[in-house]
Amino acid sequence: MTQTVSINNNQRLQLEPLSTPERLLLGPGPSNAHPAVLQAMNTPPLGHLDPAFLAVMDEIQSLLRYVWQTENPLTIAVSGTGTAAMEATIANVVEPGDVVLVGVIGYFGNRLADMAGRYGADVRTITKPWGQVFSLDELHTAVQTHRPTILALVHAETSTGACQPLEGVGELCREFGCLLLIDTVTSLGGVPIFLDEWGVDLAYSCSQKGLGCPPGASPFTMSPRAVEKLQQRRTKVANWYLDMTLLHKYWGSQRVYHHTAPINMYYALREALRLIAEEGVENSWRRHQENVEYLWQSLEDIGLSLHVQREYRLPTLTTVRIPEGVDGKAIARQLLLEHNIEIGGGLGELAGQVWRVGLMGFNSRKENVDRLIEALQQVLPK
Amino acid sequence: MTQTVSINNNQRLQLEPLSTPERLLLGPGPSNAHPAVLQAMNTPPLGHLDPAFLAVMDEIQSLLRYVWQTENPLTIAVSGTGTAAMEATIANVVEPGDVVLVGVIGYFGNRLADMAGRYGADVRTITKPWGQVFSLDELHTAVQTHRPTILALVHAETSTGACQPLEGVGELCREFGCLLLIDTVTSLGGVPIFLDEWGVDLAYSCSQKGLGCPPGASPFTMSPRAVEKLQQRRTKVANWYLDMTLLHKYWGSQRVYHHTAPINMYYALREALRLIAEEGVENSWRRHQENVEYLWQSLEDIGLSLHVQREYRLPTLTTVRIPEGVDGKAIARQLLLEHNIEIGGGLGELAGQVWRVGLMGFNSRKENVDRLIEALQQVLPK
Repeated sequence: MTQTVSINNNQRLQLEPLSTPERLLLGPGPSNAHPAVLQAMNTPPLGHLDPAFLAVMDEIQSLLRYVWQTENPLTIAVSGTGTAAMEATIANVVEPGDVVLVGVIGYFGNRLADMAGRYGADVRTITKPWGQVFSLDELHTAVQTHRPTILALVHAETSTGACQPLEGVGELCREFGCLLLIDTVTSLGGVPIFLDEWGVDLAYSCSQKGLGCPPGASPFTMSPRAVEKLQQRRTKVANWYLDMTLLHKYWGSQRVYHHTAPINMYYALREALRLIAEEGVENSWRRHQENVEYLWQSLEDIGLSLHVQREYRLPTLTTVRIPEGVDGKAIARQLLLEHNIEIGGGLGELAGQVWRVGLMGFNSRKENVDRLIEALQQVLPK
Repeated sequence: MTQTVSINNNQRLQLEPLSTPERLLLGPGPSNAHPAVLQAMNTPPLGHLDPAFLAVMDEIQSLLRYVWQTENPLTIAVSGTGTAAMEATIANVVEPGDVVLVGVIGYFGNRLADMAGRYGADVRTITKPWGQVFSLDELHTAVQTHRPTILALVHAETSTGACQPLEGVGELCREFGCLLLIDTVTSLGGVPIFLDEWGVDLAYSCSQKGLGCPPGASPFTMSPRAVEKLQQRRTKVANWYLDMTLLHKYWGSQRVYHHTAPINMYYALREALRLIAEEGVENSWRRHQENVEYLWQSLEDIGLSLHVQREYRLPTLTTVRIPEGVDGKAIARQLLLEHNIEIGGGLGELAGQVWRVGLMGFNSRKENVDRLIEALQQVLPK
């Protein structure tokens, strides 16, 4: 080894091992992971083609199908956070010129529209004020008008706390021959979802909300109808990392190397899914609903009001109106620094108007509601 | 909550908590992570906009600059594995029609060419037999002929074990006004690299080889010259997740939300980098070199020969010729299942011809060489 250049030590920080405060994460995500999930994450590593690791991948595939209630063979975890899985849905089925109709009821609808445009789509949007949802009639009119190749909707809009009803939308899409793509980032594991029953063709999620796992490996699924569109592409998928024509050869029976999987994240995800299967996904949904109702009541009891009409509220994420004259950012900061509780602020149309409170996965427990309410009472002006 | 659809339990596996064999990972990656890194990975989670987490991100940026020997302000970890960081380099600077010249000396050069094509590049390639490298003269001729916008080279070709010398290539690129992009996946932390001294404009790596961290968060850097090309784009970056015009607003002083970072992976990466800074990057390079020379000698002592000419061999990854008449796959399988040691097989041109043995990061230790040699002696035909 010849080394003739001298070393630049400008950026050589001398640090202590990491030490962080213990926060209760009740914002829009990430949430605290289940302790058993953290423990599983530290399982000794395996190679990404080790038979023992391939078995873990198979288990993840089955359990993702279970929590999503689908039999889609192409159901995998993408090696990135939820946004990567979102991009994977768009990248694989959108070809230049395809009309993609996006229902925008908040921040993440806008992100879908931006992404679809980058893959060459002819993007059309329909919008609602943030906090509201589309009726089936409104969607019918829009699909009839725009005749899209893909209808993209956000099931659980993380920026508003609203839950878009999906009953009947799959039939509508079949009537007009389009694919149905939905964002389940803030619903998977915490809100009833029946992908096959609803006729959903593409869905994505994250690991760090309803599943109670750290962020870094993200659920993705596509139906046989969507796979057909993928197979009939005239162009290569315009994204190598997320290309399902390559990825399915790694996750499927061929086991062809694609990229080095984030091994420990998959360990964690497997454990998170295992715990939900043990609990029963319908029991997890019920737990989220019961605890959020307790949260809503407790918030109203201390004089706060909620942004979304009751029937469309998410069981996982609640938007709370910031009272007149209160500095929302200052309150959130006080909760974080004095009480070690994180809640989120508003985004976009709701910036400065709401706080966002998540009760997701392992964090959906009554004692967390009590701890938040107690802290809120201390930091809110009397 | 109304739930009228009945639950499908077909995919509801009943599993035990994860239990895996303890493997010594001496393949092309992943490698075993340092125990302190695994411990750091389990630090309690913070939100991705928590001031305490933003401090961790800043530390990662500095230490990445240190290990790469660069002062590039735009130096971050991408939220995916090394392939995502690779794609980030291409996606941000390639616009449709740009001539991208790729030096192909193995599998990963081909991957770069495939990726660049997906972003609309006019891709030109020059090739060498797998295991060899380009001379500066050969590169000069190629750049003069193709007049590329970007020259992409693989510093450490993971598929062959060859190290491409880079002295003088930066000057060549400046002479012809092109950007220099290099793959340092199998070199960062284990092989001397001087990005600024060498005039490299874009580089990427992974966490799970020379840095001794699990896979899932990946080093990325671009020089001010490359940033200038990014700023002058006529089109949006054709990849939302990896768009540096958005990501630098999260990693930079603005702290605008982009995506939920893989929090625990960043904890692990910070610790891995902290340990290298403590050791001194030049000492880490020296350790890799000393241990690999011990490996080479030990392999030759038991009658095996090496594929790459000595002066171009990587200190991190060694390709070993499979002796005539030996079933390379069967030997690797026996090492794995009987001795819990993983080594890799050959890819592409070298499939069936070589084994790939990695000594990277925490795994670059003499006792691992001894353990491998002992096991090899047991499984190889006498």
